[in-house]
Amino acid sequence: MSRVFLDHNATTMPSKEVLQAIKDFASWGNPSSIHSSGRSAKSALLKTRRAFAEVVNCGPTEVVFTSGGSEANNMVLKGVARRLKERGQNVILTSNVEHPAVNKALEQLALDGFEIVRVPVCLKTGLDYEFLEKSLKEKNVGLVSIMKANNETGEIFDLKRIKKLIDENTNKNTKDEKIYFHSDMVQTLGKITVDLKEAGVDFASFSAHKFYALAGTGVLFHKKGNGIEPLIAGGGQEKGRRAGTENLLGIHAFGVQIQKLSQTEERATQILELRDHMEAEVLSKIEGVHVLAQGRPRTPNTSLFIIDGTHGETMLINLDLLGFEISTGAACSSGNPEPSPVLMAMGLSHAEASKSLRVSLGWQTTRDEVDRFVETLVKVVTKLRGL
Amino acid sequence: MSRVFLDHNATTMPSKEVLQAIKDFASWGNPSSIHSSGRSAKSALLKTRRAFAEVVNCGPTEVVFTSGGSEANNMVLKGVARRLKERGQNVILTSNVEHPAVNKALEQLALDGFEIVRVPVCLKTGLDYEFLEKSLKEKNVGLVSIMKANNETGEIFDLKRIKKLIDENTNKNTKDEKIYFHSDMVQTLGKITVDLKEAGVDFASFSAHKFYALAGTGVLFHKKGNGIEPLIAGGGQEKGRRAGTENLLGIHAFGVQIQKLSQTEERATQILELRDHMEAEVLSKIEGVHVLAQGRPRTPNTSLFIIDGTHGETMLINLDLLGFEISTGAACSSGNPEPSPVLMAMGLSHAEASKSLRVSLGWQTTRDEVDRFVETLVKVVTKLRGL
Repeated sequence: MSRVFLDHNATTMPSKEVLQAIKDFASWGNPSSIHSSGRSAKSALLKTRRAFAEVVNCGPTEVVFTSGGSEANNMVLKGVARRLKERGQNVILTSNVEHPAVNKALEQLALDGFEIVRVPVCLKTGLDYEFLEKSLKEKNVGLVSIMKANNETGEIFDLKRIKKLIDENTNKNTKDEKIYFHSDMVQTLGKITVDLKEAGVDFASFSAHKFYALAGTGVLFHKKGNGIEPLIAGGGQEKGRRAGTENLLGIHAFGVQIQKLSQTEERATQILELRDHMEAEVLSKIEGVHVLAQGRPRTPNTSLFIIDGTHGETMLINLDLLGFEISTGAACSSGNPEPSPVLMAMGLSHAEASKSLRVSLGWQTTRDEVDRFVETLVKVVTKLRGL
Repeated sequence: MSRVFLDHNATTMPSKEVLQAIKDFASWGNPSSIHSSGRSAKSALLKTRRAFAEVVNCGPTEVVFTSGGSEANNMVLKGVARRLKERGQNVILTSNVEHPAVNKALEQLALDGFEIVRVPVCLKTGLDYEFLEKSLKEKNVGLVSIMKANNETGEIFDLKRIKKLIDENTNKNTKDEKIYFHSDMVQTLGKITVDLKEAGVDFASFSAHKFYALAGTGVLFHKKGNGIEPLIAGGGQEKGRRAGTENLLGIHAFGVQIQKLSQTEERATQILELRDHMEAEVLSKIEGVHVLAQGRPRTPNTSLFIIDGTHGETMLINLDLLGFEISTGAACSSGNPEPSPVLMAMGLSHAEASKSLRVSLGWQTTRDEVDRFVETLVKVVTKLRGL
């Protein structure tokens, strides 16, 4: 029986259209060259740029290609730092459940003298918007970086509400300066509809391999007028915002896949049905399970289970042996014996966080796969509890 | 008649083996995931890492995959900055003919208080090793970053000699601290043999698309024991030195192409013959031409012609219309109406630098292509001079 992949928040399998695009790949010039092969490479980039801009509601010149979501996050956080310093805005507001690419970049900025204030996301009540508002009122905030959807729990945060709070408190800022608003949107594509104008962000990060294209390609949405310092300085690529010859193949493959983003709503409805079915099954067939952030807005494909009397990594390995690929939390902290920092930040104890299992469905996931997974999970949990 | 590409210092066409590898690509897991598809992706990375390490004479753990040469350059320059500051080593030595990815990154460091000292490369005498030695003696140098081979003239610099000067002057440094040694080696692969141990560098940058693989993949050689701050912080990928899910396809394709690096010496001999033939033909058939850095060590594939009574960009466009793809200098400064900063730094006037034409041959270049190119160049130059 073929293996079942239920770890789509970590990465996704390239779609058949992407695999075909890879096979047909012919554009290999240097897009910065003036001659014909250079110009043809450049026009291939422009095609993806326009397609992406249209689907997320921004301008094509606001799309900066990066090597992925982590680069996009580092680029914006470090890229605004000098401007914030010049303005004396030394506080950065973020949540306590961000991806490591945001967290670690902010830890570096803390070494440079920035105060990093982490808005709590509570187990029972979610993101503490009042804490956020209070911080905006009381501190000299220059940048707010809060993800749109969490990679581990799937929880969705209300960017419009955050933007409103930012706007209401911008004038109270000692220097009357703009407060930048960034959102890590890596977990959104193909799961929830993205409208950057509506979200009101200045910057947003995306990754191609989370949406059935290739690892090594990402996008930073960079709203017009927000000049930032390049993380990768050098040639004039991407209008001077990101140097280095572009990943032509990765960007082309992403461009092909972007066409399918218009199906998001329909697909999300199907996946949500499947996910709700899975959660109902797990909760009814296994005692002592709860789902994190249940009842609050979540991406339709993600369930973070806490399963009493088990151990996440042991479950993962057992499930893998039986053909099911799942994770305990973020892939990038795998290999780390400590339980997920995100779950502990939300208020789970070390012991509770060690019992986590993240199941993230994809566009190809079938009801049969979900049913077989639940059946297998029941067996694995029963076995572990019996030990 | 098919187009003739003579701009291999800008980018190269993926080899047929690379194109085949792309077609066969199957590894799509997240290498940080613990489950099977994750582990198989991780082992694919390891294969390329080992192959590259072997061919450039370093350890596999000293190979850090990046999105390209520009990222690698920015990563090392910015990554050592905090350590240099802590040690009070505020001077960075570089040459005045570096790639923009080094230059612009250093300009950013200058804003942070570093003194950037540029060792001159003179038209007649090449790199001024005495200036370099004097700077090492007199200034509190923390980092030396000098390229192995120039992208515009092909000129090769003597890293062993530089390393010797660094070692001789390390103890004279006020704080008795190590001086880091980085080299941008992006123009070396497939042109000259690379031996990192022999070169004595702590860091070196490489790019896959300059060697018949794909844009979007590069390597930073990161000698053991030289901890630097990540440019892209986040997940624990690349042993914490570079976060972000790895560009699996690009790294895999590079791995396939690396096998051919062992042919470098033999190929270089053939290309050198072709290049010398081309230069002799151009010099004999067109009056008022000279070749930059002629007589000094150069990569075997590169000629930088200064052609009196012409204009580089006009030649380029005329040649392109006739089917020959060449450049005036670095691709990444194309579109900029100013002549090459590298050539002007070497002492050419604005007017002289405007008459440049860079021809860079590749492994596939034939004698027939070179002959047709020279014939066409003669016509184009005659036409331009007649205007």
